[in-house]
Amino acid sequence: MKHFHYTKIDEKKVDAFGSKETSIRVFISEEEAPNFIMRRFEIKPQGQIGVHSHDWEHEIFILSGEVDLINENGEKEKVSDGEFVYIPPNEPHGYINEGNETVAFICMIPKQKK
Amino acid sequence: MKHFHYTKIDEKKVDAFGSKETSIRVFISEEEAPNFIMRRFEIKPQGQIGVHSHDWEHEIFILSGEVDLINENGEKEKVSDGEFVYIPPNEPHGYINEGNETVAFICMIPKQKK
Repeated sequence: MKHFHYTKIDEKKVDAFGSKETSIRVFISEEEAPNFIMRRFEIKPQGQIGVHSHDWEHEIFILSGEVDLINENGEKEKVSDGEFVYIPPNEPHGYINEGNETVAFICMIPKQKK
Repeated sequence: MKHFHYTKIDEKKVDAFGSKETSIRVFISEEEAPNFIMRRFEIKPQGQIGVHSHDWEHEIFILSGEVDLINENGEKEKVSDGEFVYIPPNEPHGYINEGNETVAFICMIPKQKK
């Protein structure tokens, strides 16, 4: 087994889909992961990940803060720490942080999906 | 997409492997999950999950508290909130909470593995 604090992983800027003020830390490499990959995101106040979709699902757990999920019609739903989020394959989704606190969440993807 | 607070999910007692003072909440059903299943565990002070192994991996994120990971020789390694843990397939592992605070963590498994 191996373990380490999340801050030991390089934090990388996310800029796909018009994203702003967002970073990702990927905990396990695609080479090492047999089935799925755990990542930790942070979105700062006024930051966002633009609406996009892909043919794989997300399972998300909100660690701290609050964020709006955005659907393909631009409609928003607020989620906050302690919430689980499931986004099915091919469903357009984005995130915007309209609060004053950085939001942090775990977001899982299957292996070989980015 | 769907989302809900973890406390909305039934909390079930874990008693396999001589486990004590441990509970699980499973966020997504095996039928609904395309690839993997997110669960949230709590182990109370003096609680434990006995050492066991299986042919699938775990990816874990510690949400709060501190817990000792136990290997097949009974050796312990402490992990605490903010740490990521990877347990490869077939590696014996257990957990014991020797602290005064309940430990909570997210633990991922592939679909069709229990």
